[in-house]
Amino acid sequence: MSVTRIGIVAKRGLSAAAEHLTTLDAWLQTQGVEPVYETDTALLAPSTAGRRRLTREDLPSSVDLIAVLGGDGTLLAMAARIAQSGRDVPILGVNFGSLGFLTEIRIDEIYTALQAVFDGTATFDVRKMLRAEASRDGARFDTRVLLNDVVFTKGALSRMIELSVWVDGGFVTRVKADGLIIASATGSTAYNLAAGGPIVHPSADALVLTPIAPHTLTNRPVVIPGAAAVEVRAHVADGDDVFVTYDGQSGYPIKQGDVVRVVTATERIRLVKAQSRSYFELLREKLKWGER
Amino acid sequence: MSVTRIGIVAKRGLSAAAEHLTTLDAWLQTQGVEPVYETDTALLAPSTAGRRRLTREDLPSSVDLIAVLGGDGTLLAMAARIAQSGRDVPILGVNFGSLGFLTEIRIDEIYTALQAVFDGTATFDVRKMLRAEASRDGARFDTRVLLNDVVFTKGALSRMIELSVWVDGGFVTRVKADGLIIASATGSTAYNLAAGGPIVHPSADALVLTPIAPHTLTNRPVVIPGAAAVEVRAHVADGDDVFVTYDGQSGYPIKQGDVVRVVTATERIRLVKAQSRSYFELLREKLKWGER
Amino acid sequence: MSVTRIGIVAKRGLSAAAEHLTTLDAWLQTQGVEPVYETDTALLAPSTAGRRRLTREDLPSSVDLIAVLGGDGTLLAMAARIAQSGRDVPILGVNFGSLGFLTEIRIDEIYTALQAVFDGTATFDVRKMLRAEASRDGARFDTRVLLNDVVFTKGALSRMIELSVWVDGGFVTRVKADGLIIASATGSTAYNLAAGGPIVHPSADALVLTPIAPHTLTNRPVVIPGAAAVEVRAHVADGDDVFVTYDGQSGYPIKQGDVVRVVTATERIRLVKAQSRSYFELLREKLKWGER
Amino acid sequence: MSVTRIGIVAKRGLSAAAEHLTTLDAWLQTQGVEPVYETDTALLAPSTAGRRRLTREDLPSSVDLIAVLGGDGTLLAMAARIAQSGRDVPILGVNFGSLGFLTEIRIDEIYTALQAVFDGTATFDVRKMLRAEASRDGARFDTRVLLNDVVFTKGALSRMIELSVWVDGGFVTRVKADGLIIASATGSTAYNLAAGGPIVHPSADALVLTPIAPHTLTNRPVVIPGAAAVEVRAHVADGDDVFVTYDGQSGYPIKQGDVVRVVTATERIRLVKAQSRSYFELLREKLKWGER
Repeated sequence: MSVTRIGIVAKRGLSAAAEHLTTLDAWLQTQGVEPVYETDTALLAPSTAGRRRLTREDLPSSVDLIAVLGGDGTLLAMAARIAQSGRDVPILGVNFGSLGFLTEIRIDEIYTALQAVFDGTATFDVRKMLRAEASRDGARFDTRVLLNDVVFTKGALSRMIELSVWVDGGFVTRVKADGLIIASATGSTAYNLAAGGPIVHPSADALVLTPIAPHTLTNRPVVIPGAAAVEVRAHVADGDDVFVTYDGQSGYPIKQGDVVRVVTATERIRLVKAQSRSYFELLREKLKWGER
Repeated sequence: MSVTRIGIVAKRGLSAAAEHLTTLDAWLQTQGVEPVYETDTALLAPSTAGRRRLTREDLPSSVDLIAVLGGDGTLLAMAARIAQSGRDVPILGVNFGSLGFLTEIRIDEIYTALQAVFDGTATFDVRKMLRAEASRDGARFDTRVLLNDVVFTKGALSRMIELSVWVDGGFVTRVKADGLIIASATGSTAYNLAAGGPIVHPSADALVLTPIAPHTLTNRPVVIPGAAAVEVRAHVADGDDVFVTYDGQSGYPIKQGDVVRVVTATERIRLVKAQSRSYFELLREKLKWGER
Repeated sequence: MSVTRIGIVAKRGLSAAAEHLTTLDAWLQTQGVEPVYETDTALLAPSTAGRRRLTREDLPSSVDLIAVLGGDGTLLAMAARIAQSGRDVPILGVNFGSLGFLTEIRIDEIYTALQAVFDGTATFDVRKMLRAEASRDGARFDTRVLLNDVVFTKGALSRMIELSVWVDGGFVTRVKADGLIIASATGSTAYNLAAGGPIVHPSADALVLTPIAPHTLTNRPVVIPGAAAVEVRAHVADGDDVFVTYDGQSGYPIKQGDVVRVVTATERIRLVKAQSRSYFELLREKLKWGER
Repeated sequence: MSVTRIGIVAKRGLSAAAEHLTTLDAWLQTQGVEPVYETDTALLAPSTAGRRRLTREDLPSSVDLIAVLGGDGTLLAMAARIAQSGRDVPILGVNFGSLGFLTEIRIDEIYTALQAVFDGTATFDVRKMLRAEASRDGARFDTRVLLNDVVFTKGALSRMIELSVWVDGGFVTRVKADGLIIASATGSTAYNLAAGGPIVHPSADALVLTPIAPHTLTNRPVVIPGAAAVEVRAHVADGDDVFVTYDGQSGYPIKQGDVVRVVTATERIRLVKAQSRSYFELLREKLKWGER
């Protein structure tokens, strides 16, 4: 692909990125590629003083690729911004410290990875996203496109929440639990894994519904077709709280009768692959398979 | 045992108890036993108009036995009050609707059960309680005696909490999870079971530490001696919240550096047994063992 | 569909089926449909004395529909026979006693269900099957088409087995466990569920790989695309045994270096649906969701 | 303690032990302690040519301490032999390669550990053992004293086994599963952990009953008092097999009606502690807690 401008976003406060930003900036110039810095990221590296700066919101519409330095959280936020922009801007996710499921490229691998993108030899992981629509009294009041998961949780002092779940209009069950996770295949290795859900290969066309600490012991994670539509209605008793969160990044309380509908989005996000690491290699490294 | 006065407490708003309260009141009179009503409970049954009324707090010091009508929650609250009173007042737990792990006597069994108490033929389950002490800056600011569990949880919009755990002064691990449950044997069949913890027979001298949705997949429930002391210290980042709750009834946020210490209390609670039901029968009925 | 002949197979030794066979036989005659009995089934009901009889192997090629009376095991065996025959013969699964995931029609619902088939108003569940090919020294020595699962297990006195697993040629991991289940969506509610695997909706195009009691605690069930090819190679130390079983019906020991390859088969099986029961209703009833 | 003779047992075929045996032998001489070699172990190190040799069976009655080099399996076998001997012979467990839950001393730590034993400054872990008694037609035909677990399993081609379980004479449940583990606290981190059971601290006076892949999803691990007696009766249909194994070392098929009774044994085994490692440190290292 032809890359003229690269957006650069670092995790907030990631001072360890400063020196790498300086080196990267210089290298990009030798390649004839213009770096465009996310506003806060620019502040991390004084060397980027004269460069163009844009907010996270504006970045996707002005660049051909976005390099994310830092955790999976920063990448999730940028993926949602890219989906909003309607443009097909790939992400190159770089981890600092421990390997991430999404930020799988090490900082020392970034130049090889970028070179491969410039040369047209890079491979991309195309990841399906989720669309969530929240309605109250029949009127939609929030729409999101996101990568990992839509999560329903209880307030900290509540004992549990009750949710009614439908798939393609058919009633599934009333969940009494700490919460419920609706995860994409990509999101299956995030919160879903902690709650006891299965790993879903990103190529599988499937969503997974995983209750968190269900009171009904036979309530188990359910894998449904990627084409299915999930609807969740909260039963919120007075005084109690039910929250919905998106990608673990932001959320809000919902009320009795509110409905959140989740489907596979038409939007996709493309992730630059590390040349050296397959999905199962990543799993083995992250989960320390093979060791007891 | 000699019973002169029986305290009667119903779950708040349990209007189904009204007619039973009337019948019970009349029957107690024929037995020469004085019923003393918890204030709100008295309001449920107009027939109890002339009877003595006391708050939940004052009830334990004025009666020889307390009959709890309703859910496990009401019973847990009364157990804590009894422990506070320092008196040995047994509880007779009556369920309305579904069998409870604590309220295992059906409303139609109450007369047989009470008769057995009066006759001295009743058997009692002696249940160990937990003592929790919360300290800030080295000063204890809250002490509780409770029956089921001390639970650390995250705020609804937080992604996880981090807790350091010590047992008898030895560091156990740093838990990254939705939360952590410290349950008594009695509490093992409550929230602990939903979070994947084991059932602990009430006669076992043991506590159980169960992480809720741990991010470290090898973090498993740990059973420790009943004589052990558990200390939990919360790592609370700015903006994040960690809460501690007692028996799922009440709780509060804790701060960075706060320590909650949990031990088996010296206090015990005695529960009147249903003649007909052993612990394992109760488990089978509640968990529907034997059916798929 | 036009039905001229119906094959009838009962679970071996299901004497409770005798009277129903007599009634069913008479009813089929009034409908102008010829019942053809599986050899052993005919012995259960003397009333079927004059009817045509065929072995389980020959039945699929001579009838338009097969009614299975009894457990899921009998149905699984017939499904494999139908796949072998290369014909599209639907199965109507009737349970005796408890509801089956596959035999979901009660004996009293059989006439309504058959009538719907004759009238062309019946709905069918199309279930994908698995193809398993076992090779030794590069030569295939066994091929199966089956509905539920391919399972690798240890010998009774072995401590564990070790298996290397590949998906689409990429190495997944070396599993040290009691065993490994490769389940179709349909098979996900069978053995897979007992081993801690997720429920996979039959419409999801996915397979699930679930280790049984894995020694590596981070080894979790993995859901892969239905189009994927799984290869399993056993590491069999001397004296130790590794077995492979198909649909829990039959199997054999495998040797060091043997490879079993599992893919979604091109064959499908059609199951007559109970009019009254959706997939999630079936799940709720079988798993007693909604009750604690 | 006064140590005159040390028994030395290596895992069968552990050729890596040879050089260490030579060094250890020389060092023991300088300490005035006589090494006594288990027959097969002596063959590993020619340097031990002139030393006294005894079978595993005879070793415990002739030495003051036994050093086990190799895996937990070898240690389990020696622990059972020591219990049979009726003598209080401590074990010093040395691992080769990966840390064991029982063989927690590294080969380079052996001299410090032995010196501490000679000096009387060593600390010992006292571990409770299990006694298992198997009866047929009312007559006991096998008695074992063992450290980790009594396990009931199915034959490789069986679908499940059915077992009835009693605790202190009270019926618990009928388990339909791949098997059932009865583990001591020490055994809780062995097979029990793979099957989903809890970690039980060795100081806890408790046993744990953990079903393996139970068909009833609400069947959960149950922790019972250490003083309890467990009885298991197998329901063995014709053709099917149920096996019982002890410490994963040896076992046999049992028949319909056979009863295996398991209690905490009066025998104890003492393990020499590594100076540097507490129980929870061992857990953290083995389970890689603290890493994702």
